Amino acid sequence: MGRPKGNHEDRRGDVAEAVWLVLATDGFNGLTIRAIARQLQATTGVVTHYFGSKREIIGYALELLEKRSAGRPRRAAADGLAALRAAIMDMLPLDGKSTTANRVWVSSWDHAIADPQFRREHARRYAAGVERLTGLVEMAQELGELAAGDARSMATQLQSFALGVIVQAVLDPAQYSATCQIALLDDHLARLARTPEIC
Amino acid sequence: MGRPKGNHEDRRGDVAEAVWLVLATDGFNGLTIRAIARQLQATTGVVTHYFGSKREIIGYALELLEKRSAGRPRRAAADGLAALRAAIMDMLPLDGKSTTANRVWVSSWDHAIADPQFRREHARRYAAGVERLTGLVEMAQELGELAAGDARSMATQLQSFALGVIVQAVLDPAQYSATCQIALLDDHLARLARTPEIC
Repeated sequence: MGRPKGNHEDRRGDVAEAVWLVLATDGFNGLTIRAIARQLQATTGVVTHYFGSKREIIGYALELLEKRSAGRPRRAAADGLAALRAAIMDMLPLDGKSTTANRVWVSSWDHAIADPQFRREHARRYAAGVERLTGLVEMAQELGELAAGDARSMATQLQSFALGVIVQAVLDPAQYSATCQIALLDDHLARLARTPEIC
Repeated sequence: MGRPKGNHEDRRGDVAEAVWLVLATDGFNGLTIRAIARQLQATTGVVTHYFGSKREIIGYALELLEKRSAGRPRRAAADGLAALRAAIMDMLPLDGKSTTANRVWVSSWDHAIADPQFRREHARRYAAGVERLTGLVEMAQELGELAAGDARSMATQLQSFALGVIVQAVLDPAQYSATCQIALLDDHLARLARTPEIC
């Protein structure tokens, strides 16, 4: 007789939690069957019951990361430039939880680069991010809060800025405090907000 | 009788080349003793003769990456904004060789995050990059080619922009052609060059 469904579902939750805790501590590089089993206080056999291969574990971890990121709380967003600022702040590692998530995102790129399918999925994720920011840039331009110009290019520049700050903050948290990251963002947005000189 | 020094030195060069080829193909995640041995067409025993542990291999690979990056050819740099533009172009994955190097850099962050010493070394590298760009921003400001303001903040924003473009270009090379990356950089520099509105 198989396990009752309730328990099986609970166990799936435990596995997700264990995978997340390994990722948070050691990144994708540390995500081994043995490490997940240790976190679960179970045998490696329990883990291989859920995952057929290392690649399946990576795929599962990437989905888990996306699901957790999509489900995170967002800052209340006003219109225009304020909404754009809030959207970028939601990306940055400004507190413990977002720092952990960003460390995991940065660590995921190593596996993503080496695997065509994972790389395509990541490319799709970042392209969707640019699309979302483009809408916010357009709104801020319509309100006259952001200089005119190609909204998509500006959105790509802003997402690039955010990703670069994330990388440096994750590698050098002492230098990149939340206050420092927000000051960088505000200086950046102030520069972008300037209208071109007419004469 | 030991091997003549000449041959030993040659072999070290072979090992460096093998490590680089594994990194270029599979990133840090694929950098195993077995993969290096396969690339060398040698036994794993030959590799463990050079490296005492997996961590030693990672440390060696990070040094190799830094040495290769430091030794790469740079664009001839004029003064001011042109020199700043050239310095950022030298960072971006605009051709095959720089794309490979950047893929390896991005893939190195996973290991660096999980290891305090490697993370400190990376933090030092990116801080040195900001210092270098700060000098170029100051020069461009003195020449009146770049808007006034905190040069260090602007340099950090520019390095962030470059790192973010690198991440997206490495994950989505079809979208981020060399032409596209240069257009983004030029749009970005044009925005930063604008002087604040006086009235």
